[in-house]
Amino acid sequence: MPKVQFLPSGITIEIGPEDTLLKAAMKAGIHINASCGGAGVCNKCRVFVEKGKVEAEELPDGGIKACTATPVEDLVIRIPVESEMDRRALERSSAKATSWMREAQACVEYPKDPPVKKFLIELPEPSLSDQISDLERLMREVRQGKFKGASLEIDPEILYFLPNVVREGQWKITVTLKDLNESSNLVQLLRVEPGDKTKGCLSVAIDLGTTTISAELLETKTGTLLGKVSDYNPQVSFGEDVISRMEFARKPGGLQTLKDKITQKLSELIQELFSRARRDIQELSHLTIAGNTVMSHLLLGLETRYLRENPYIPVASHFPTLSASDIDFDLPSHVQCLLAPCVASYVGGDIVAGVIGVGIHKTEKLTLFIDIGTNGEIVLGNQDWMACAACSAGPAFEGGGIKHGMRATTGAVEVVHIHPETYEPMVLTIGRKRAKGICGSGIISLLAGLFQTGAIDRQGKFVRNLNTKRIREGRDGWEYVVVEKEATQIDADIVFTEADIENLIRAKGAMFAGYQTLLESVGMTVQDIDQVILAGNFGSYIDLEQAITIGLLPDIERDKFFFAGNTSLIGARAMALSKVAIEDAKRVADMMTHFDLSDNARFMDHYVSSLFLPHTDSSLFPSVKAP
Amino acid sequence: MPKVQFLPSGITIEIGPEDTLLKAAMKAGIHINASCGGAGVCNKCRVFVEKGKVEAEELPDGGIKACTATPVEDLVIRIPVESEMDRRALERSSAKATSWMREAQACVEYPKDPPVKKFLIELPEPSLSDQISDLERLMREVRQGKFKGASLEIDPEILYFLPNVVREGQWKITVTLKDLNESSNLVQLLRVEPGDKTKGCLSVAIDLGTTTISAELLETKTGTLLGKVSDYNPQVSFGEDVISRMEFARKPGGLQTLKDKITQKLSELIQELFSRARRDIQELSHLTIAGNTVMSHLLLGLETRYLRENPYIPVASHFPTLSASDIDFDLPSHVQCLLAPCVASYVGGDIVAGVIGVGIHKTEKLTLFIDIGTNGEIVLGNQDWMACAACSAGPAFEGGGIKHGMRATTGAVEVVHIHPETYEPMVLTIGRKRAKGICGSGIISLLAGLFQTGAIDRQGKFVRNLNTKRIREGRDGWEYVVVEKEATQIDADIVFTEADIENLIRAKGAMFAGYQTLLESVGMTVQDIDQVILAGNFGSYIDLEQAITIGLLPDIERDKFFFAGNTSLIGARAMALSKVAIEDAKRVADMMTHFDLSDNARFMDHYVSSLFLPHTDSSLFPSVKAP
Repeated sequence: MPKVQFLPSGITIEIGPEDTLLKAAMKAGIHINASCGGAGVCNKCRVFVEKGKVEAEELPDGGIKACTATPVEDLVIRIPVESEMDRRALERSSAKATSWMREAQACVEYPKDPPVKKFLIELPEPSLSDQISDLERLMREVRQGKFKGASLEIDPEILYFLPNVVREGQWKITVTLKDLNESSNLVQLLRVEPGDKTKGCLSVAIDLGTTTISAELLETKTGTLLGKVSDYNPQVSFGEDVISRMEFARKPGGLQTLKDKITQKLSELIQELFSRARRDIQELSHLTIAGNTVMSHLLLGLETRYLRENPYIPVASHFPTLSASDIDFDLPSHVQCLLAPCVASYVGGDIVAGVIGVGIHKTEKLTLFIDIGTNGEIVLGNQDWMACAACSAGPAFEGGGIKHGMRATTGAVEVVHIHPETYEPMVLTIGRKRAKGICGSGIISLLAGLFQTGAIDRQGKFVRNLNTKRIREGRDGWEYVVVEKEATQIDADIVFTEADIENLIRAKGAMFAGYQTLLESVGMTVQDIDQVILAGNFGSYIDLEQAITIGLLPDIERDKFFFAGNTSLIGARAMALSKVAIEDAKRVADMMTHFDLSDNARFMDHYVSSLFLPHTDSSLFPSVKAP
Repeated sequence: MPKVQFLPSGITIEIGPEDTLLKAAMKAGIHINASCGGAGVCNKCRVFVEKGKVEAEELPDGGIKACTATPVEDLVIRIPVESEMDRRALERSSAKATSWMREAQACVEYPKDPPVKKFLIELPEPSLSDQISDLERLMREVRQGKFKGASLEIDPEILYFLPNVVREGQWKITVTLKDLNESSNLVQLLRVEPGDKTKGCLSVAIDLGTTTISAELLETKTGTLLGKVSDYNPQVSFGEDVISRMEFARKPGGLQTLKDKITQKLSELIQELFSRARRDIQELSHLTIAGNTVMSHLLLGLETRYLRENPYIPVASHFPTLSASDIDFDLPSHVQCLLAPCVASYVGGDIVAGVIGVGIHKTEKLTLFIDIGTNGEIVLGNQDWMACAACSAGPAFEGGGIKHGMRATTGAVEVVHIHPETYEPMVLTIGRKRAKGICGSGIISLLAGLFQTGAIDRQGKFVRNLNTKRIREGRDGWEYVVVEKEATQIDADIVFTEADIENLIRAKGAMFAGYQTLLESVGMTVQDIDQVILAGNFGSYIDLEQAITIGLLPDIERDKFFFAGNTSLIGARAMALSKVAIEDAKRVADMMTHFDLSDNARFMDHYVSSLFLPHTDSSLFPSVKAP
């Protein structure tokens, strides 16, 4: 990879083949004014090549656009005075180059032993001296084999196929067995096929999110990933969050509509996975589905009314294994559907799957597991004990309730750096397209940047008398102009308002008060935490220093932080491939102590104290220097 | 009860309030000519009252009709010369007065512990400090109670009712549990109802016969019988016997039609039981159904093709427990349906239920269990071992394949006595109506009578030169006129032909060869048998001496014979009330050694030797004297 030295600071970094000079500078914590997010339209990101060769658009007044420049060889680049920060500003943001979290390494490997599996069985042909029935003949063979001593149950459906299957297969048949529960030693015979079909035993692991669905097609014998697919949860059109979905479910026919939408969508996605992988849908043996409690209830069509009403009681938290036809999936009826168990109304199977996915139940380390999504859930614990809570943080970090907030898709402002003297922004958008709005990571870097440059105070209010046109009183009160109208796709300035900041402070305050409440309940403090694992893609995009600066994450050693990606999907995958993971999920769901923060006085105290940047008690954030 | 002395024999008997002089005479083995079966139309049963008062129709030429006479007080009755038998004839038939079998006393009492039962459960109300789900709350309570340590499974259907049921019942609910299998310790939660519904836990026990269905409504807690109902199996219109049903099942849509007919009829009968007993069908918890292998397959809609084809393999012999909706019954879907397990294609759940109903598996006595119906099945054994076989006896003893054979309904000739010198018959019909045909017991007494009077020889051929018009060469060969046209309902003489006799000899021969084959397989003879139990109503109607005379039953001590009534229904009832009976049925089905006689050379030898009256080897029938 070519090296680039930026002048006047002299900082040198390596630059990847896909990176532009603008992105590389952002990573290195070097400010270059840039308004259009890398779309090549604002012409503000002028830099000069002092040495080396680069492919880039040239500007008419000299220099090149940093947002278009990809280095061919080692370079020396000079940043002009209008972009340059002084040394003081540089120092303040120097930590950033190392502030991205490391990816968590799952500390648990599950034995490959899927809950549903296939076996080839050769039956002795019946004769007048061996006249037992087709079913007993099969059972006799199964009992003599691997499942000696097991209680065998059969799916009655089998009886309708069995006589023809055994004869078509000339007494060689493939049986599908469900072998879930180590303790009860109960094995269920689900399906029979003629001949050797043991190669086709596929599973689909599903993360069923409130907003998005992700699914993976897996070969259960080897664990091979055969395909991935993602889509929006179609229930979104009936309500953005779980509360509005439950409200819709109470309307006549509402629950059925929500159930129909999701079963249909999941059926489609699964069919798509199979058709892309050129596999036969009949090879599908089971689904594992990790979703929050409300999503799990809606998938099964269960009453959600009491989830909402105090004292917030689910119909079930451990769900029975169901067949595809029980759930009305448009899939072969033999397919088994396993849902990850939930803990409480707002701590669901996605969290339990996440915990077993990253292996908190297998580590001695005191772990804080954080899932910041539409709702914020946290788990604190290790192999010996676990506490969990939902923080009612709201969807601010997903862009919800933020004036120009948006999901992390093309055109979303994903990183902002603010010049500490001029308050000019350096903006990168996803896909380097003209900006449409600001996504979660952009929101955090904006809030952190405004706070660090002194543009807002500890209460999140704009300093009124700064010498910049970027901060102004707009229609919705005071605001910061992130991208000017001309460089956007929306024919309006993209701004970040005081009301936005207030929402964000409440959200981060709820999260932090959650950590504190759980820690306090076991007599610990943030300093006792051995590792923090962030679930979701969120963790891979946000800047760790900035997240700590605003008080969203605790101010502890940076090397204790990890992001783990879609932990819910990781857990669902583990459950699809290993019945040990299923047992672990049940055990984890049972061992978790749930704290209902809505009724917790300590939480309320912590919450109120958290409504400052980074916190009322600045000793909790020793490394964050107020401007 | 008044006493009646018959002259000239001087025999005195007591006579019940419902009996006529004709019936009393028949019971006492006293012959009175009587052609019309007791319908009062042939005017042949003339007797004279010598002493006492009697209500009766008088005959114009003097005397009264014995078939109309009910005694008011003690009587002396003289039988005229034309009816009278000489002393020799009298002696020959004198054994008859004691030749009715005793009713079997079941040697097993099952503990009242039905496989499906209800419990009242009081749940603690949820609160913010006890937030577990409705389902886990219920499971917690069940686990703490009687079912500590059991594996609990739930019917997913419950989840849809549970939240409203617990709240409607204010946390007092009635749960229905299926607790089938002692060994696996698996308990299934089937149903929840608000409040205390433990009083409504009813069961229906069903004998599903090829021809008739009998059902009983039972209160499972106490075992109280709440009602009984019987009807024909509506499949009869698609074939009289199992073979023709299976042929029909192979036609397109045939299997479904047969299944639909029987599920509909059973649903109707069950609804009728409930409406007669004024009970709510929702109180029905389970059905136990004992049927032969073909009936069980047709009820479930299972392929019967391989039951018919060598080597005669059922789809299943132990059937999984199914819900009413699995079987498409028009009954509440929670209702559990338990089928008695079968042994082989032609030894079914009716036989297994019979065995556990009368308790062969609990006795040390070597027992021969005989079920003579459309097919003849036999079981030989005791608590330690059992052998069984189907004898392909055919339906001759039910009137099938007999020219004027008919079922045992009104107008059927049920008893015949033949005058040893005049060959004139003394006939009783069911309901004392004009004769329509001859039922099983009538057929046996005809065959025995003709043989004992010397009217037929040991090969079953009519003696050609006897001085009677009753024996003649008819359109279908030689025959005996049982009832003349004038006294029938059918505008034709009711006759008993040589072809009929041939069929009967084959049928009784198959049965006897069956006993011999099973006995021989364990190195025993008929003398080793401790008791013979006859299943079905058959046993209560046939004359034991006559059945031995024709070689249908073995010639052993008469006090070893018992009839047990509808043993299949008795077994189904035991299974409805006790899970021990269900376990026993499974064990019995597994312990029975089945002999396929169709492929058995020894059976063929015995069969050929049995095609004589009573048998080729007359030493096997020492008490039967050839005429």
